[in-house]
Amino acid sequence: MVKLNEKFLHGFVSAEEIENIRSAASDAHTKLVNGTGEGNDFLGWVRLPENYDKEEFARIKIAAERIKQNSDILVVIGIGGSYLGARAAIEFCKSPLYNNLKKDTPDIYFAGNNISPTALTELLSICEGKDISVNVISKSGTTTEPAIAFRVFKSLLVEKYGEDGAKDRIFVTTDKARGTLKQFSDKAGYETFVVPDEVGGRFSVLTAVGLLPIACAGIDIDALMLGAQTAMKQFESFDLDNNAAVRYAVIRNILLGKGKNTEILVGYEPYMLMLNEWWKQLYGESEGKDGKGIFPASVVFSTDLHSMGQYIQDGQRNLFETVISVDNPGAEFVIPNDPANVDGLNFIAGRELDYVNKTAQTATIVAHNDGGVPNLLLNVADRTPASLGYLMYFFEFACGISGYILGVNPFNQPGVEAYKKNMFALLGKPGYEDMKNELEARIFG
Amino acid sequence: MVKLNEKFLHGFVSAEEIENIRSAASDAHTKLVNGTGEGNDFLGWVRLPENYDKEEFARIKIAAERIKQNSDILVVIGIGGSYLGARAAIEFCKSPLYNNLKKDTPDIYFAGNNISPTALTELLSICEGKDISVNVISKSGTTTEPAIAFRVFKSLLVEKYGEDGAKDRIFVTTDKARGTLKQFSDKAGYETFVVPDEVGGRFSVLTAVGLLPIACAGIDIDALMLGAQTAMKQFESFDLDNNAAVRYAVIRNILLGKGKNTEILVGYEPYMLMLNEWWKQLYGESEGKDGKGIFPASVVFSTDLHSMGQYIQDGQRNLFETVISVDNPGAEFVIPNDPANVDGLNFIAGRELDYVNKTAQTATIVAHNDGGVPNLLLNVADRTPASLGYLMYFFEFACGISGYILGVNPFNQPGVEAYKKNMFALLGKPGYEDMKNELEARIFG
Repeated sequence: MVKLNEKFLHGFVSAEEIENIRSAASDAHTKLVNGTGEGNDFLGWVRLPENYDKEEFARIKIAAERIKQNSDILVVIGIGGSYLGARAAIEFCKSPLYNNLKKDTPDIYFAGNNISPTALTELLSICEGKDISVNVISKSGTTTEPAIAFRVFKSLLVEKYGEDGAKDRIFVTTDKARGTLKQFSDKAGYETFVVPDEVGGRFSVLTAVGLLPIACAGIDIDALMLGAQTAMKQFESFDLDNNAAVRYAVIRNILLGKGKNTEILVGYEPYMLMLNEWWKQLYGESEGKDGKGIFPASVVFSTDLHSMGQYIQDGQRNLFETVISVDNPGAEFVIPNDPANVDGLNFIAGRELDYVNKTAQTATIVAHNDGGVPNLLLNVADRTPASLGYLMYFFEFACGISGYILGVNPFNQPGVEAYKKNMFALLGKPGYEDMKNELEARIFG
Repeated sequence: MVKLNEKFLHGFVSAEEIENIRSAASDAHTKLVNGTGEGNDFLGWVRLPENYDKEEFARIKIAAERIKQNSDILVVIGIGGSYLGARAAIEFCKSPLYNNLKKDTPDIYFAGNNISPTALTELLSICEGKDISVNVISKSGTTTEPAIAFRVFKSLLVEKYGEDGAKDRIFVTTDKARGTLKQFSDKAGYETFVVPDEVGGRFSVLTAVGLLPIACAGIDIDALMLGAQTAMKQFESFDLDNNAAVRYAVIRNILLGKGKNTEILVGYEPYMLMLNEWWKQLYGESEGKDGKGIFPASVVFSTDLHSMGQYIQDGQRNLFETVISVDNPGAEFVIPNDPANVDGLNFIAGRELDYVNKTAQTATIVAHNDGGVPNLLLNVADRTPASLGYLMYFFEFACGISGYILGVNPFNQPGVEAYKKNMFALLGKPGYEDMKNELEARIFG
């Protein structure tokens, strides 16, 4: 379902260089599969496509059916890994214009991923007069952004439907036992789903975190899991020649070693935009530590060929690109003939638009190669949930290996706490008094 | 309307370093203002906020009124600079959810900025049963992406409204005299607006290119121009101490000289997303050439603190951030009290959400500073068109200076042609036969 094409790495990465890294790659693979590396308490995602909780999975499907039947809008409250996976899947399998298209599933809006009064106010106005359900996703229940949004939407639902009615419209994805949100939900009678202990946020798309919103969009989550399972079985044995996840991890580390410290993930369809964002968290948060890591950037071409194209072609040469090409884009459109031929494009009239898009892709890869930018091409079969499940697992598995090759713990994110501590101190959270004084002296002194 | 706060550059950029670059900065400023530098045939945007065509400006407002009255949807067809400015302005002044909000102005969809069959098919389905107008924006009229979209929407309008009816709903922004699109439009009776010769696409937001779609969204374009004019007058004299555009240009070049070759533009409101994209084209395309330039990236916090935050805090140290803070965010929302205090956030109940957002911003700047990331803070007063006009002109003017300091021609984009030539050859465009054979041998051989 995903094929790696290394043709456009020619002259940038040699077979010998790949061979030289064999033992490091094999060690990394072993660490991941056997759970013997750093961060091995967060490897629950590795066997997840097989070992997932089937009883909960069935409940997710039932909850999704209920939401589809009684709601015009599902508000999904979560941030980071509790937001990007579901949104990426919905845009990839359905559309970035999902909410604007006619359909028989609810609109899905994502809240609690910012601290913006404009975003919250606008979403509330969009919800006016609509039937809504809420899925709040927060392991601890205390993360600032989703917590604030949940306060607001919980009140709204209680006001609109009463305590009893709200109960049937609030779905809580949180820790299985610990945390005040779990306790509160049980008491209030909200249906709860689990953010597993051993699965970090950026690896959680195939848990209830991603699955409930994805199912509400009418996406077949059985197929999604099956696709991931296929990938899991394909990648579990080390094979430097044929394991695409291993090769991707190896190649990007070789490129990093040659000063290519920015990787641009490239899509050619607007529905790739949020998958790009999901990938940026996965790789940026897993590898960006200890002064190391590849800076993850992304573009959607041909749109961004007319903005970032110049830089990629001719700017500083610290870049490489990983291009995701979806073989069957999911729609057909024939370019019409124009008798006046005002634009001079009749030489492509009668052609499929996707043929032109794919030609632009090949043309761009060659041009960027000529400009000194290595290109790695990933062919994905189509936009089906199975292909997406496969692709997402591919990226997750490759990420684990890549991080171990790089020499970091790919499964922690210690740097995310720094701003939070400062914020709590500045906001006057009890217990942060000393830090508050010190910070205020620095900022305002 | 825009204030530069350099406090968080402390320890990264010294007063002496700024002083050392005085003469280069002064030369760059002179080149820009006197038109004596490379690319000086593309400086029409410098005096534009004063010298713009008042007759055409009046026609833009009339056309916008007509579109607002007779259209549910305006389809804006353009790519790169013919797309990003208008979209950035509409999202900044109105909302990224503009199309989903109740309003008395038309929905505005952007087409012709990709070669995606899914995007085109979906937009056509959204247009079903709606009254639509089209604004096609293309200097030459032959750029592939907008040309294909215009073929489709022109046919649709003729089919729906007849040749005569379509005439009143098609607005063409193109070259003032040359090009087949201008000739065809005159013959067909479409109202035309001008993409001026001496204004490159990425500097064109304050011409008809940006102004017509912006006006259709109900944004006051007089105020937008006035804001830009204020900026123009403020920046036209060189003053290393007080000219914010000069200082921004100087500081980023100093940081580049110290190995900070990636600049991240940071916003704290979802409505900043497309302004970030507009900025990326402006700087990436102006400076990314001859192996030089700062790689432009962007984030929207706090969302992306939970994805890119780890990397920025702890990854490779080749980054700096430019933070745009909008003093008055344009909405108020008080955090509600929760008697159960499930999330432990009652210590901020009763606070404005924007207060928390601004505190997160300060907290993050300090945290990233501590992580070794220089931060430049840009304070913008509000989301009014005047502030936006000022801000956009600020970035344009600073970009010209910055490019000259860097030693490139900031006003060309030679690298954008490379993929186009390859694409035309591979598509079999007459005249590209030799190149086609050569490329095919490389790709498929």
